Amino acid sequence: MKVNGVNYRTIWLEDGSSPCVKIIDQRYLPHRFVVEPIESFDGLLRAISEMHLRGAGLIGVAAAFGIYLAVWEQRNLVNFQEALEKCALKLIKTRPTAVNLRWAVERQLEVLAGVENPDDRVAIARQTAIDIAEDDAGCCRKIGLEGVGLIEDIARNKNGGVVNILTHCNAGWLAFTDYGSALAPVYEAWRRGVRLHVWVDETRPRNQGASLTAWELLNEGITHTVIADNTGGHLMQHGLVDLVLTGADRITTNGDAANKIGTYLKALAAHDNGVPFYIAAPSSTFDWSLSDGLSQIPIEQRHPDEVRYVGGWLDGRLQNVLVCPDESPAANFAFDVTPARLISGIITERGICKPLPAGIKKVFPEKFNY
Amino acid sequence: MKVNGVNYRTIWLEDGSSPCVKIIDQRYLPHRFVVEPIESFDGLLRAISEMHLRGAGLIGVAAAFGIYLAVWEQRNLVNFQEALEKCALKLIKTRPTAVNLRWAVERQLEVLAGVENPDDRVAIARQTAIDIAEDDAGCCRKIGLEGVGLIEDIARNKNGGVVNILTHCNAGWLAFTDYGSALAPVYEAWRRGVRLHVWVDETRPRNQGASLTAWELLNEGITHTVIADNTGGHLMQHGLVDLVLTGADRITTNGDAANKIGTYLKALAAHDNGVPFYIAAPSSTFDWSLSDGLSQIPIEQRHPDEVRYVGGWLDGRLQNVLVCPDESPAANFAFDVTPARLISGIITERGICKPLPAGIKKVFPEKFNY
Repeated sequence: MKVNGVNYRTIWLEDGSSPCVKIIDQRYLPHRFVVEPIESFDGLLRAISEMHLRGAGLIGVAAAFGIYLAVWEQRNLVNFQEALEKCALKLIKTRPTAVNLRWAVERQLEVLAGVENPDDRVAIARQTAIDIAEDDAGCCRKIGLEGVGLIEDIARNKNGGVVNILTHCNAGWLAFTDYGSALAPVYEAWRRGVRLHVWVDETRPRNQGASLTAWELLNEGITHTVIADNTGGHLMQHGLVDLVLTGADRITTNGDAANKIGTYLKALAAHDNGVPFYIAAPSSTFDWSLSDGLSQIPIEQRHPDEVRYVGGWLDGRLQNVLVCPDESPAANFAFDVTPARLISGIITERGICKPLPAGIKKVFPEKFNY
Repeated sequence: MKVNGVNYRTIWLEDGSSPCVKIIDQRYLPHRFVVEPIESFDGLLRAISEMHLRGAGLIGVAAAFGIYLAVWEQRNLVNFQEALEKCALKLIKTRPTAVNLRWAVERQLEVLAGVENPDDRVAIARQTAIDIAEDDAGCCRKIGLEGVGLIEDIARNKNGGVVNILTHCNAGWLAFTDYGSALAPVYEAWRRGVRLHVWVDETRPRNQGASLTAWELLNEGITHTVIADNTGGHLMQHGLVDLVLTGADRITTNGDAANKIGTYLKALAAHDNGVPFYIAAPSSTFDWSLSDGLSQIPIEQRHPDEVRYVGGWLDGRLQNVLVCPDESPAANFAFDVTPARLISGIITERGICKPLPAGIKKVFPEKFNY
């Protein structure tokens, strides 16, 4: 997608004599566009855990590149397998909620199992990381094509009037390799000339909506309005939202979806006002081993200072202001689970599923034993 | 209530040869405790519109003191009545949602109607403002006594376990002359030895929860945790909230309640999880002329920069950081309406009403013609 008119991805290789992974350092967005070169496993581990990059898909792809870096560094070790598994575990521990990360790491471990030749190890890990990145972009592109009909239908029902879409957090191309999940149908509809306006939840505590989603939409020239997370219910009560579209970090086989904290509240408001509420996510977001989101998906708790302070741009640099008494404690749950009953459908690269075991089975029959 | 162990009110008179209204300038809280002397009508008008003070009850009381200042300044004018009505209109226009403001101004105009002697005018306006302030504090104290039973009952059901209360925005003593509305029962329960913990919604865009409610609770020594506004649903899904208690800015005769933007979302989550959701407000919050909140209560829209920027403490002073692209527009709806069907009850100084015309009539029979 575009940055000042030039096409970019969120992560790519620029290997010289040794590997080099380049990423957009999202901490500086929307204020500065910074590309960070990462040349070590530890560097990539830090980039994930300190959120230079984030987003369900992208942390999976980044983890795959992380394994590539780890393999390069350890390719000649006698205890290669053991060392690699340690790195894999470190990666998985950085962000416990998104399932894509574990999925990507496990795919790498699988293809590397039993490979003895150091050069082969490196070549396989490199190619697998590239494949995972390509798959991610390809899935997102297909999600756009599968989901665009929903938006076109609304536009038709409104006789070409502006379609108002509300989104929470960032599930755009910055959360993946390219295109995005929730924003992919929006971008596709925009390309097809549908008149759109996006309500952008700022998404406290880290403000990924205000900083990333708004920046993406701005770069693509799509009309949007930033709102406090408290606002969506009021907008829906007054007919100002035609569709709620968010991403997901993990989906269970019964159709429950974990996504950024606050998603559940928007789903409740959508349900209460008859507004369709769709989740868009690649199939790698499904956790086929879990059948109940509320009781089974682990919810990451992050540092309370992300709540106590707000980061933003001041005097030409990122600064944090304290918004509560210095002595007050805070809690920082990063995700919540939206129960399937509040979800109108799940847009995947294979089609739109009803959020029920039967609906998901229809689109992914090979994942079910019954 | 206490500030560093000393009892304060939010507004009081310290008249010398001319009137002087003193207020706590809440813009500096929780970081600095600043008392502002106000000696002119224009100064008080500015204090309300620029939110040196805020809160449904307090802006009503402040407006009453504003009329006192206006009367003092204009007491000898030939066209006194006309000048006074202009001031009244200016006051009413500052904050359109809270009904207390209009109520206090109209009460002043009523008692001043036909009074010709300048000294009488001043004396009457002064006494009426004091009376309104005393009434406000008295009502809040009674709200505490009427509502404390709800909290005691929960404590009893939990066998003395900690009662977890979630509140949104600031409906504490800083929103009134003293005691508060939603926090009055909390303070009363605390005084009676009930074990309590309060989840404090930060309440974007202006963060009155993080800055004011947390500061109040801290000064009273009550255990609390600041959370992003997105968090309440997740907490309720996991049984971590026993009671939601908020204030209101306007209540209609069918039991709908306008309160700070985002209240509706918490009410939905409470309803979805079987958590009791109570509104606490003095009777002056009722708008007896309106019978449907959603269609009839005007919702104030404030400056978009309150959303685009976040104010907080940095380097020993209040500073604002930009949280979205500089080119992105924002919308800033200040209130939303929670429909009566989501409200368990309305705690007033006269007792707890069911949020239905019949329930409200039972407590305020004189307000109904049928």
